[in-house]
Amino acid sequence: MRSLEQELENLGDPETSPLRDSGSSHCPTHLGPSEEEGRKQRGVEDSYLFIQLNELLGSPQNQEWRETGRWMLFEEKLDQEAKRWSSPHVPILSLASIWELRALLTTGLVLLDCPVQSLSELTEQVTRVESLNPEVRERLKSVLLQRPQHHIQPKCWSAARKFGTRLCRGGHSNETPSAEKPPLKEQLQSPLWQKLPPGTEAAAVLVGELDFLTQSLGVFVHFLEPVVLGTLTEVPLPIRFVCIILGPPALGKDYHEMGRAAAVLLSDQLFCWAACQASNPQDLVSAIDAFLEEVMVLPPGRGDLTERITPPKSLSTLQKRLPLQFQDSKGSCNGNVNSKRDRHSYEHEHQSASKELQRTGRLFGGLIQDIRRKAPWYLSDFLDALNAQSLSAILYIYLATITNAITFGGLLADATDNIQGVLESFLGTAVAGSIFCLFAGQPLTILSSTGPVLVFERILFAFSRDHGLDYLPFRLWVGLWVAFFCLVLVATEASVLVRYFTRFTEEGFCALISLIFIYDAIGKMLSLSETYPIYRPGLSEDTGFTPYGCLCYFPDTKDNISLWKGQSSQDKEAALRMDLGLANMSLLSPPECTLQGGQPRGLGCHFVPDIAFFSFLLFFATFFCATILKHFKSSHFFPSKVRKVFSDFSMILAILLGCGLDASLGLSTPKLIIPSEFKPTHLGRRWLVPLFGTNPWWLCLATALPALLMSILVFMDQQITAVILNRKEYQLQKGAGFHLDLFWVAMLMLLTSAFGLPWYVSTTVISLAHMDSLRRESATCAPGELPHFLGIREQRLTGLVVFILTGVSIFLAPGLKFIPMPVLYGIFFYMGMAALSSTQFSERVKLLLMPAKHQPDLLLLRHVPLCRIHLFTTVQLVCLALLWAVKSTVAAIVFPLMLLGLVGIRKALEWVFSSQELSWLDDPVPEKTVKEVQEEKSELLYQQRAPEINISVN
Amino acid sequence: MRSLEQELENLGDPETSPLRDSGSSHCPTHLGPSEEEGRKQRGVEDSYLFIQLNELLGSPQNQEWRETGRWMLFEEKLDQEAKRWSSPHVPILSLASIWELRALLTTGLVLLDCPVQSLSELTEQVTRVESLNPEVRERLKSVLLQRPQHHIQPKCWSAARKFGTRLCRGGHSNETPSAEKPPLKEQLQSPLWQKLPPGTEAAAVLVGELDFLTQSLGVFVHFLEPVVLGTLTEVPLPIRFVCIILGPPALGKDYHEMGRAAAVLLSDQLFCWAACQASNPQDLVSAIDAFLEEVMVLPPGRGDLTERITPPKSLSTLQKRLPLQFQDSKGSCNGNVNSKRDRHSYEHEHQSASKELQRTGRLFGGLIQDIRRKAPWYLSDFLDALNAQSLSAILYIYLATITNAITFGGLLADATDNIQGVLESFLGTAVAGSIFCLFAGQPLTILSSTGPVLVFERILFAFSRDHGLDYLPFRLWVGLWVAFFCLVLVATEASVLVRYFTRFTEEGFCALISLIFIYDAIGKMLSLSETYPIYRPGLSEDTGFTPYGCLCYFPDTKDNISLWKGQSSQDKEAALRMDLGLANMSLLSPPECTLQGGQPRGLGCHFVPDIAFFSFLLFFATFFCATILKHFKSSHFFPSKVRKVFSDFSMILAILLGCGLDASLGLSTPKLIIPSEFKPTHLGRRWLVPLFGTNPWWLCLATALPALLMSILVFMDQQITAVILNRKEYQLQKGAGFHLDLFWVAMLMLLTSAFGLPWYVSTTVISLAHMDSLRRESATCAPGELPHFLGIREQRLTGLVVFILTGVSIFLAPGLKFIPMPVLYGIFFYMGMAALSSTQFSERVKLLLMPAKHQPDLLLLRHVPLCRIHLFTTVQLVCLALLWAVKSTVAAIVFPLMLLGLVGIRKALEWVFSSQELSWLDDPVPEKTVKEVQEEKSELLYQQRAPEINISVN
Repeated sequence: MRSLEQELENLGDPETSPLRDSGSSHCPTHLGPSEEEGRKQRGVEDSYLFIQLNELLGSPQNQEWRETGRWMLFEEKLDQEAKRWSSPHVPILSLASIWELRALLTTGLVLLDCPVQSLSELTEQVTRVESLNPEVRERLKSVLLQRPQHHIQPKCWSAARKFGTRLCRGGHSNETPSAEKPPLKEQLQSPLWQKLPPGTEAAAVLVGELDFLTQSLGVFVHFLEPVVLGTLTEVPLPIRFVCIILGPPALGKDYHEMGRAAAVLLSDQLFCWAACQASNPQDLVSAIDAFLEEVMVLPPGRGDLTERITPPKSLSTLQKRLPLQFQDSKGSCNGNVNSKRDRHSYEHEHQSASKELQRTGRLFGGLIQDIRRKAPWYLSDFLDALNAQSLSAILYIYLATITNAITFGGLLADATDNIQGVLESFLGTAVAGSIFCLFAGQPLTILSSTGPVLVFERILFAFSRDHGLDYLPFRLWVGLWVAFFCLVLVATEASVLVRYFTRFTEEGFCALISLIFIYDAIGKMLSLSETYPIYRPGLSEDTGFTPYGCLCYFPDTKDNISLWKGQSSQDKEAALRMDLGLANMSLLSPPECTLQGGQPRGLGCHFVPDIAFFSFLLFFATFFCATILKHFKSSHFFPSKVRKVFSDFSMILAILLGCGLDASLGLSTPKLIIPSEFKPTHLGRRWLVPLFGTNPWWLCLATALPALLMSILVFMDQQITAVILNRKEYQLQKGAGFHLDLFWVAMLMLLTSAFGLPWYVSTTVISLAHMDSLRRESATCAPGELPHFLGIREQRLTGLVVFILTGVSIFLAPGLKFIPMPVLYGIFFYMGMAALSSTQFSERVKLLLMPAKHQPDLLLLRHVPLCRIHLFTTVQLVCLALLWAVKSTVAAIVFPLMLLGLVGIRKALEWVFSSQELSWLDDPVPEKTVKEVQEEKSELLYQQRAPEINISVN
Repeated sequence: MRSLEQELENLGDPETSPLRDSGSSHCPTHLGPSEEEGRKQRGVEDSYLFIQLNELLGSPQNQEWRETGRWMLFEEKLDQEAKRWSSPHVPILSLASIWELRALLTTGLVLLDCPVQSLSELTEQVTRVESLNPEVRERLKSVLLQRPQHHIQPKCWSAARKFGTRLCRGGHSNETPSAEKPPLKEQLQSPLWQKLPPGTEAAAVLVGELDFLTQSLGVFVHFLEPVVLGTLTEVPLPIRFVCIILGPPALGKDYHEMGRAAAVLLSDQLFCWAACQASNPQDLVSAIDAFLEEVMVLPPGRGDLTERITPPKSLSTLQKRLPLQFQDSKGSCNGNVNSKRDRHSYEHEHQSASKELQRTGRLFGGLIQDIRRKAPWYLSDFLDALNAQSLSAILYIYLATITNAITFGGLLADATDNIQGVLESFLGTAVAGSIFCLFAGQPLTILSSTGPVLVFERILFAFSRDHGLDYLPFRLWVGLWVAFFCLVLVATEASVLVRYFTRFTEEGFCALISLIFIYDAIGKMLSLSETYPIYRPGLSEDTGFTPYGCLCYFPDTKDNISLWKGQSSQDKEAALRMDLGLANMSLLSPPECTLQGGQPRGLGCHFVPDIAFFSFLLFFATFFCATILKHFKSSHFFPSKVRKVFSDFSMILAILLGCGLDASLGLSTPKLIIPSEFKPTHLGRRWLVPLFGTNPWWLCLATALPALLMSILVFMDQQITAVILNRKEYQLQKGAGFHLDLFWVAMLMLLTSAFGLPWYVSTTVISLAHMDSLRRESATCAPGELPHFLGIREQRLTGLVVFILTGVSIFLAPGLKFIPMPVLYGIFFYMGMAALSSTQFSERVKLLLMPAKHQPDLLLLRHVPLCRIHLFTTVQLVCLALLWAVKSTVAAIVFPLMLLGLVGIRKALEWVFSSQELSWLDDPVPEKTVKEVQEEKSELLYQQRAPEINISVN
């Protein structure tokens, strides 16, 4: 045995380092994945190892084994007094305890590939080889065979009591292993047992002080074939390793720490693998040294030992830690291998994900390729949906879709003076969505009205109104041209150009749209208080407004009408001849007056009190309710499923709350306008839009110009969503269909324009929520570990059913007339705020206000100087101000061109910023910084997305 | 040299462990604090060590030294690309790097007690002893003498450029050390330099790859006398240690890690101490081993390496880590020694803090002792205030006090139907506060109206109203009796009984008071909407309420008055004879009508629109504004001073916002009633309250009963505040005066009762804020470390000035009539919510709603089973419900007795819960769990408290 000292000094040279290679140097031939030895590895790497620490506790006369800790990936400590498992945490060891363990195992008993089949056999083996006198041996046997007391959570007290009895089974060594100790009922009822994946094996670490021992006893056993050793562990798993550390009471608490060290060692996959490969005790010691070489060290006194370190979101993988030549073969041994990747591998993947965007060079070449790629999957696109998970996905996305249809319908009605409305929104969503799900390249995509298209539509409407045009025929021609331009883009395979739209462009645009939403929501609320003015004593009367000036006027006395106009009566006489009967009559409220055949006259007649302030209350209530419910997911109250429901349905709950509040008070707040029967919202039209209406014929040519602008929007909005949805990280098997998707967007543009329905493109957020609700993941996992992502159920059926249900919901639409407008404005305001705060741009704006020492530890800040970040943010702010200025002028219609302007400014920035800086500030693909990518990924993969309305372009 | 292997195996026995004792085994005689060697230790333990890591970076042809990291207590890494220091964080090392360093130093050059005086001398020493050929030696010298490039934050780019020039000073070894390299201007401008405490020394770690070296070179230098080595370090500090690690490029990045390991070692105080004591290289290696034995180890792959661990709030101290026999002598070597203590030492301290509460056994014995103890300090109580800090304390506490006077004045006016009001509140606060500050035992205490006393006063008022009594004389007699009972309590030294009021009692009471506040605030708001009804079309008309039913009636036509009462006029004829001149006249608004000599008549005349909803808007706006501003302190925006101002003045800002909002709209919301001149709020009374008024004579005896009840309240409220304020942790030097304080409370009770002013006792929260604003703390500290608490400026002057200013502010009181009542209700609501959520009780109620796995890692949860915690919480909830029920009945006046009931229930709980459980759930002294105590302490000591109204008893 070489001295550790020598080994330490050799560390300088990696070639001769005994530590570095110790894991693989003894049995390199065992590593091939197809070899017969694979079986031996399986138990360690392909599945979990459950490690339990049993300690001898109690008075020396009445010692018993008690479970005090357990490990899978993380440590769970039994808080003895509270009788509860701690939350899973990263274990902290002292280096001394590992060294002590190492010393003990160096001199101790190491049984490798042990063929023992029962606990009594094991006890024989363990005690026989020791140079113990017979009496001590027997006492040791009896101690080891004693049944341990586990902590099984659900029935903590009653179960724990039962385990308290001693079971000395020293004389029963002839029993068959299977019958010897059947698992206890309590063991099988344990929640952990029900969660463990099949193939999980166990390890038991037994530590304790025994006063009859004269020296420490260290035993490490590796079983050739894992064997269930009865009630040794909390859950009746086959046991692969047993580690026994016993000794005289001299050392006190150190046995506990040594036991923890042994358990933490066993919880390390690489150590287990090395221990499985070990052929002699020295190999085991080398494995400990290899472990030691990789540990992270915190200096003494600098950490807070009472804090338990929470498990990280992503684990550094076995993949990275294996010697290079074995990495590929072990790639899939554990589900979390893919959960952490560095920047370069990520970018590489993204590029490979864009392969479907390579140019073929032929007209419609991309489209044809897309159809060829997707056709073979068409049948499976329906069969793959036959799963219970699809039902919950349908419910979830259906609610998100109708919330979206209502809010965007409301926005549309608002934008077009009720020429289009909620009914069109429902109908269009149902028709366009269904068709798209049936035929599109990526059926996981959900079509929706999106912010940019809506903003453009509003600009179009304002333009047509200002020039006295017939809106719907005008819009029809725009739609026809947009469809044509989109087909041209499909034919020329323009989708490959998507790479020029960087985050700079997207975020600028997203921020603009968000600001428009926020501005409009507040503007609408303020205009409400003009419609329903507030009576201010003293002030309001000066402007001629008073709530007291209303009389019921009966038309017979027309001759006296002139007197109404003289505001201050000089005619005292007339005033004194007041007839109180008349007064009573004239004091009728305006509706009653009309009923009785009179006419309410006077400045106060149109005064409806309280509406303005109540509208503000509704607006804020809805906004705060949506915001609070949305963030409820990250609170700690109630089980996570309940929180998820509240968070996912935050918007519909906020709308319901607003409606309830409004209905309970019964005030005449302004409500959403819904036709009472199934006909277009605009009264004087039929479904099919006429080709010209009252418009001049040449308008069908002139509309090509705005249509060109809008094509830019549609193209961008559609394709960036498509790129995000087809990211490699979602592990989609059936491929994307960028050209096919755009083709169908063009076709639907024709259809919706012809029938005066809203325009649709793919929406990022609901589509992501859709994919998320269809993701498959491993059901069983270790405490503290997050479930593994296995893929997405790719099919067309859930989307199709969602849109058919949306179609059916049209008949529910008349019920929507109870929704007060302030509630919808509150939702719009929330949407604007949520979209604005989701951008990295807003993060950077916040940095402007933060002193350097309070800034969060973003990776971005580690790599780009602060003043450069601020410069970039300032450029974006200036661009945004320019966009807003242009948008507010008559030139608003050219705003899609401003988008191209942003692309140009982004290009110009390459002269100011280095490519390294730009890669952090503005990824060439629409990505965030590494840290955010990782967070985003883990969020996307491990957390549900809520139904949120996509008003941004990314 | 013994093999490490041997040493490791010896670890089992603490007596012979070479690692454990290595630090002290070689020079135990050096440790006495009074010894001459003390000088040698001073630089290491009494002050900070600044450690800088310089690395050779750049291409092999153009290498230069660059600062890449620095350490004091924590690591700050230079993020090269971002050109910025990372936030201070706990360093994580690899074990391998420490081992490599150890190996290098074992064979390398160790210069202990080195007498070198300049960098060139050092370079000579370092290069001479090496077996290098002359050419390599010269090149090495030139490299070592090259001026390093530091990163000095304020002028990061310009300064960095200047440093880039090579300075070869190999030939100038004859220069005097002092003149050789004067500190650069940039060095002296560094913000770090301006922050470092005097006596700070430095260490430099130089690492790099040199291609002309053939083997690694490790040098460790300890200077006998610290010496400024020019621009070697970022700040021109005298250097105590230099560590040089150079080698051929083979190993690559490992040099960096070895350099970090050396720096982290040097940042460990115990290692530095051992290095100072070391007499030979082996001692140094032993010191590394001692360090290694104490490190904390994280298993590989379980942490997130990109995360930087933030510094803990409290550091485990050198105190704990020193060998036992030296702990006392090192107790004060570093300011953070006292920042972490375990539970037992804390309790011990608390008990010693209560020594002033020991019974003397003589009548007024405690009072006399208090006066004897405080009298010698009386002059210094004024002189000690002469400091600029007192000015900011006065401003801060003055604003808190008048906010308090306004809100409690408002509450009082509300509770007593404007018999008392804001004017009494201002006057009483000024008079009572000034007297108390002049004569009390603990002049840091701030007197105030507190929640419990106010609640009791309201009950008294309700009682006197219900029984037709003259309130102020009735109240006078209660006050006289309370003063008498308090004097009895002073005479009998009853203050020692305070230990029976446990947290169970306090929290139950605090929760009750908070709920009363919340309930009343909401109740007042709802009653506002009855006073200013909301017009609901359809609904309101059925109840005869309409905003349209108001005519201006002129009394001349009295004969027709009967017609007013017939609601629906049948007289069509009369209606048709409408005279529109009359109509115009009769449509005047109610105030105008009155002006013109008419009378407004009709159900609609009293209708003031919009007030109800606007009041709700004001209420919520004030509440949210106060809440958000209060929590603004923990946000990351703006410098911490700005945040502190917003947070500290959250309530006054919220009130101002509410007033501004109200004033800008000019609605006639209900306002605070303030007399227009300096006279009592109640119209028909003079300042001095008559002894009997209209009350029967026997009432002066009967009031003894409610006074007895109230005495319990006053006693509890006063004494628990006093105990909290005189806690040991505030390190008060002048002692407490429990009996003297209670004596003055009794005297002031007499005075305030006689003049009809509110009653006053000490208030916890403002008093804590007062002490906090007077705390002295160390101004200089290491990055990432919190400042050290040095004590409190104990004096009477700040409090006195605050109350004199409050007295002057009485003349500002008429301006308070612009404060709308809904704003004050919003503040009351906020106070109730804040007080309720500050209790551990509310924490435990939250636990009821949390699934076990989402619960925070409270120490309480580690020590008490969850079901026991829930049981305790449930008992408290039931008690609270009972208290509420009693409070709502006519028996409300006995509610101080219920407090005693709580004490009884708490005693009974000792049969249900073990003493161990109760020590966690309900400390015998009003404390929280250890973790909370630590947090609370660090909050109290390190964070400013905000002015908050004390409505709770603790």
